[in-house]
Amino acid sequence: MSSKRKAELSQAVVYVKLKEGVLDPQGLTIKKALEKLGYQNVKEVRSGKFFEIVFDSNGTQQSTKFLNEISDKLLANPVIEKFEIEVVK
Amino acid sequence: MSSKRKAELSQAVVYVKLKEGVLDPQGLTIKKALEKLGYQNVKEVRSGKFFEIVFDSNGTQQSTKFLNEISDKLLANPVIEKFEIEVVK
Repeated sequence: MSSKRKAELSQAVVYVKLKEGVLDPQGLTIKKALEKLGYQNVKEVRSGKFFEIVFDSNGTQQSTKFLNEISDKLLANPVIEKFEIEVVK
Repeated sequence: MSSKRKAELSQAVVYVKLKEGVLDPQGLTIKKALEKLGYQNVKEVRSGKFFEIVFDSNGTQQSTKFLNEISDKLLANPVIEKFEIEVVK
């Protein structure tokens, strides 16, 4: 373990979506709109959001901790939503 | 499970995000909120949305056409947004 750590610019994407079983009005609305447009083959639409984050990183472990923290505190509502983190670089 | 359907149930995800250069107020707000929470290391936040779609497919070519059509017509606003399609199965 080196004590010399230089901050690197990292990139990650946090995907947030509703937990299974939680009603998704936006998804339902889109499904209905698609039916009206003539697309009868759509069985289900579930909506979600994602956030591309560029940040100064002090190592992989710190990054994981940081990303989990901000997802849990701010990006997702843990009561009804779940999140997935993808570190791009 | 049941084998009453001839058409195969396919799954795809459409990712929609703002084009480069288009202002992202939601992303900016999140960045500011993170700074207030003490996360000074965040350089940029860009927000986007995604849609998980389950649909009856009549082949890969048809699916691609269908997914491009609904993305262009309904899921994204082509003036300010771009989309990416990921076929899951």
